[in-house]
Amino acid sequence: MKYMFKLILIISTILLFADSSFASSKRVHWRMALSWPSTLTPLANPPIKLAKLVKKMTNGKFVIKVEGAEKTKSALGVFDMVKGGAYQMDHTGSYYYIGKDPNTVWFTTVPWGMTKAEQDAWYYYGNGMKYMEKVYGKYGMLAFPGGNTGVQMGGWFKKEINTVNDLKGLKMRIPGFAGKVMARLGVNVVNIPGGELYTSLDRGTIDALEWVGPGMDIKMGFYKVAPYYYTGWHEPASEMTFLINKKAYNKLPKNYQVILKTAMRAVSADMFMENFADSATAWAKIKKEYPGIKVETFPKPVLKAMKKATDEVMQSYASKNPLFKEIWNDQKAFMAKARKWSYMSRYYYLQASKEVQ
Amino acid sequence: MKYMFKLILIISTILLFADSSFASSKRVHWRMALSWPSTLTPLANPPIKLAKLVKKMTNGKFVIKVEGAEKTKSALGVFDMVKGGAYQMDHTGSYYYIGKDPNTVWFTTVPWGMTKAEQDAWYYYGNGMKYMEKVYGKYGMLAFPGGNTGVQMGGWFKKEINTVNDLKGLKMRIPGFAGKVMARLGVNVVNIPGGELYTSLDRGTIDALEWVGPGMDIKMGFYKVAPYYYTGWHEPASEMTFLINKKAYNKLPKNYQVILKTAMRAVSADMFMENFADSATAWAKIKKEYPGIKVETFPKPVLKAMKKATDEVMQSYASKNPLFKEIWNDQKAFMAKARKWSYMSRYYYLQASKEVQ
Repeated sequence: MKYMFKLILIISTILLFADSSFASSKRVHWRMALSWPSTLTPLANPPIKLAKLVKKMTNGKFVIKVEGAEKTKSALGVFDMVKGGAYQMDHTGSYYYIGKDPNTVWFTTVPWGMTKAEQDAWYYYGNGMKYMEKVYGKYGMLAFPGGNTGVQMGGWFKKEINTVNDLKGLKMRIPGFAGKVMARLGVNVVNIPGGELYTSLDRGTIDALEWVGPGMDIKMGFYKVAPYYYTGWHEPASEMTFLINKKAYNKLPKNYQVILKTAMRAVSADMFMENFADSATAWAKIKKEYPGIKVETFPKPVLKAMKKATDEVMQSYASKNPLFKEIWNDQKAFMAKARKWSYMSRYYYLQASKEVQ
Repeated sequence: MKYMFKLILIISTILLFADSSFASSKRVHWRMALSWPSTLTPLANPPIKLAKLVKKMTNGKFVIKVEGAEKTKSALGVFDMVKGGAYQMDHTGSYYYIGKDPNTVWFTTVPWGMTKAEQDAWYYYGNGMKYMEKVYGKYGMLAFPGGNTGVQMGGWFKKEINTVNDLKGLKMRIPGFAGKVMARLGVNVVNIPGGELYTSLDRGTIDALEWVGPGMDIKMGFYKVAPYYYTGWHEPASEMTFLINKKAYNKLPKNYQVILKTAMRAVSADMFMENFADSATAWAKIKKEYPGIKVETFPKPVLKAMKKATDEVMQSYASKNPLFKEIWNDQKAFMAKARKWSYMSRYYYLQASKEVQ
């Protein structure tokens, strides 16, 4: 019996020790809903890569099952799915929820807003993350940047835009905030599902549309039916968003929380790189196949009209929503500094590089 | 005795189970040497943040002790310390080792080279990581991007540079590859320790110097003694580097390898954001304190001369080193595509933004 006691003591010690180790390698199963099909790369890559990394980092203990829009059947329903807890997290576009809460737009991009570098600096070294927490905290969710497309192109046009008047009556697919801006300039903003866009543009049902940039646009074939590709103004740095149910997050062991957050930052940075490379390659391909395609920038009076209309739309939200006004002012103040540095650094470098060619 | 056997069986099972769990939470102690003092932010932040994240992600099991240059006493000795295994990893600048191996320059930045976005795309979606592995593999090391300063400024000048002739005899602190380029243009390239730079510039011992950008330059006080701040050409996207002893890396449990790699990507992305924000804030402060400071871009003939001299220095390495030539060509081919997209996206966006002000 003396041996028995010793053995029980040893077993208890081992169990205790083992338990403290297991606490940090608890089995966790999450589900993540996407606002896009899981095949829509590079948008779907941050969540897919995140799940793989998290699984590997935890030796298969923390598993996140990724379900694309082909499964969830509701691109914009993911907000409520995560809020309600049916899914622990999602990967979506914050500005889709402008109808629920206008302040969600600040975490994707706004017309004439910050570039990717400026926005990243605002998120992590300005007030961006603080405001994101404030806006999504109301819905019991945490929100994190989830990958960026960089500057989105102004869109594919069948005819050149020479004056503000050319915008009047123009039938264009341009959703969201930018659509509201265009509508103020007389554009007939139409909403057409992605699958029907090519045919609509080809047949002249619409005169113009915006999608993303060369990397994603090439798959849609727009360059075959519209010869003018306008440079961007309305989505200078569209950031995807990970939304996480706060209760689910708080139940995670601390090390899993850090693993999840670190992986989100890594995969977000990666998506921008992938989309940048895709766009560079796709544009070379488009130009080779259709050398007649013209890259145009809207004439100055048109740009100015777009800026004025943007400010008016902003003002209409700001006058009704104090937090909207606060975040707008915060972004403007940050941009005032950041934009000067953007010009001094990358803009002049790219300009100088042109001159030595 | 029957109970004894059962107990031994139970203990063995527990031990086995515990062991499989312990394999993934093995205690590992590493040391990381920095090429800079651990107080030199933001350069020293990626390694410091990396160590914190890795520790948290492994519940304190994988500990990386960070030792700055104040401890190692050898900024450039870290290469050999990691190669030899005295340290498992370091945080350094790849181009410091141009004397050991000219191909190390490709992983930091080169004059007239890629922007940060272009370079990131080359690393992860071009041949960058492949070449990095090839170059550092020879020394038994793995190498990873470790944070970027973005475009570095062309430097602080006491007098304006109006012609190529103004460069002749100019005493300037500009080390490395860019120094070789400037020397070809007649610049008297001098090497002065960081601590003596301010006094040297103030007293006219040197006429000009380059450091980093507003965020780091402000701490050196150069703006108080030189009124011309030239825009960048020689370090368009200086990337720091993590070097890792390959044998040490291979001994890590698989999940620690993924944890380390993921954390490196997260902290690298973060440093660029921090430096960007720092530079925006510092520049606003400098301009407020010294409103007379002029941001200048070198005149076109000077830029062209710098480009020509850069190509000549490149050629001199390429003619002796086939791998140098191969990587040069690879970067040129990647840039040819990527630069077009840079102009179409961010350059034109920044240009349009100027026009609507």
